[in-house]
Amino acid sequence: MTSQTGPDPEPTNPVLALLRERRSVRVFTGEHVPDEDLEQILLATRQAPSSINAEGLSLVVVRDPERIRAVAEVAGGQPQVAGADVVVVFVVDFHRTEMAARLHRRQQVVETSAEGVLVGAVDAGIALATFQTAAHSLGYATTAIGGIRNNPAGLIELLDLPRGTFPVVASTLGVADPASLPRVKPRMPMASYAMEERYDPQAVADGARAYDEILRAWWDEQGMAQMPTWSQDTSARYSTYYYPTVAATMRAQGFRFLDGPQDDDAEAR
Amino acid sequence: MTSQTGPDPEPTNPVLALLRERRSVRVFTGEHVPDEDLEQILLATRQAPSSINAEGLSLVVVRDPERIRAVAEVAGGQPQVAGADVVVVFVVDFHRTEMAARLHRRQQVVETSAEGVLVGAVDAGIALATFQTAAHSLGYATTAIGGIRNNPAGLIELLDLPRGTFPVVASTLGVADPASLPRVKPRMPMASYAMEERYDPQAVADGARAYDEILRAWWDEQGMAQMPTWSQDTSARYSTYYYPTVAATMRAQGFRFLDGPQDDDAEAR
Repeated sequence: MTSQTGPDPEPTNPVLALLRERRSVRVFTGEHVPDEDLEQILLATRQAPSSINAEGLSLVVVRDPERIRAVAEVAGGQPQVAGADVVVVFVVDFHRTEMAARLHRRQQVVETSAEGVLVGAVDAGIALATFQTAAHSLGYATTAIGGIRNNPAGLIELLDLPRGTFPVVASTLGVADPASLPRVKPRMPMASYAMEERYDPQAVADGARAYDEILRAWWDEQGMAQMPTWSQDTSARYSTYYYPTVAATMRAQGFRFLDGPQDDDAEAR
Repeated sequence: MTSQTGPDPEPTNPVLALLRERRSVRVFTGEHVPDEDLEQILLATRQAPSSINAEGLSLVVVRDPERIRAVAEVAGGQPQVAGADVVVVFVVDFHRTEMAARLHRRQQVVETSAEGVLVGAVDAGIALATFQTAAHSLGYATTAIGGIRNNPAGLIELLDLPRGTFPVVASTLGVADPASLPRVKPRMPMASYAMEERYDPQAVADGARAYDEILRAWWDEQGMAQMPTWSQDTSARYSTYYYPTVAATMRAQGFRFLDGPQDDDAEAR
């Protein structure tokens, strides 16, 4: 299935080449994205699939420069957001589906289940990737912004998001500054990322060790030897609740995890 | 930003055309996807972004026909899965990141937070959309399979998934049977899907009502007048915990939602 040795084969068509060249661009020229191009990108995004065709996702497209700066603040003061021409927020939307429930005199419960949270977040990710591929095909640059979960309550207020909705992830959009264009970042070795038939803990362990070296060498090449390795960086973040208000804000928006045992979790705290 | 009247403008490049033609294909010819093509698709998928570059996602690629039938069983007995040449399962993988934590003598907590669940599910969705776009560019067909959450414990056993991992979503891959190729399904009106600057509850309500009519007319055109409307279908599913073992299985895999208030949820049950 995958080449075990030697360099990766070259992409065999232009779409694959576009996907293989994907990188997160954090410095923009400030050039304006024309309405026609944004419409093309959104029409492509809208065709992304949703679970049970529920269409439980909405996009809020922020273009007002002052409001983009406000989103950047919410995301922890990120210049890469403030410098974008457009910021699109991907919103899990069980407010829309609740209208359907009311119409048929049903009581919606999806937002009170772990399953509902999974569905919403997966569909947001699907739409975000589609949005970014569409944007890249037109020559624009993007970065996914998980940092909006730094202060989700602030974003909910800024975007007037009703109960039953939650802003899960965002994407910047703009024209890349060619002077600051990053190189494509290397990835986990394929054998430890895509496994055949079964999960292989040994392959994952080997790949993780190898990746620390691969990324170290790559940073060195960029003259950024001070950057942490993959395992340093990931373990530092993942040993804290690094966006600590997510669960409380979800709760305030009406989300719950009632479909599973939880009361005896208290002792595990 | 968006045309308020008239038909949608035609896509302006081949990538946008590919994304606009996306549909979920459920009948395959049985033709084999060659190794070289699968490798191309996986190389493109691997380049998808992950939050904080944690690479907390793994793919399990199922090609053994007997095992594909077993996945179809887990998904509730779905012929669309059993008939695929390849099934790829997208697995949130905090087992890999825990290796990083152990290496640096840290205690990983990400899998015990709502934030962690969101990160994992969003990244799985991003990878799935990238996988599908790559596959479509080579002429293959796919469908996202949320139905694996029908029996996640069964899939965890089948794929040998360790603690700290969870199979969030899957995708089929194969050659579409041209005799059963569905038409592209219409979507929510753009003004109720992508909103400018702020969430607009009135636009969402208007769009939801209009979409029931749009989808009704579309089913009628297919000679499937018996199909439910969007609001009937969505409200029926979302008024039940339709995959009722998700939360309990997540818990058994080590996932928790400890970063938010939960104890007083008991009274809301």
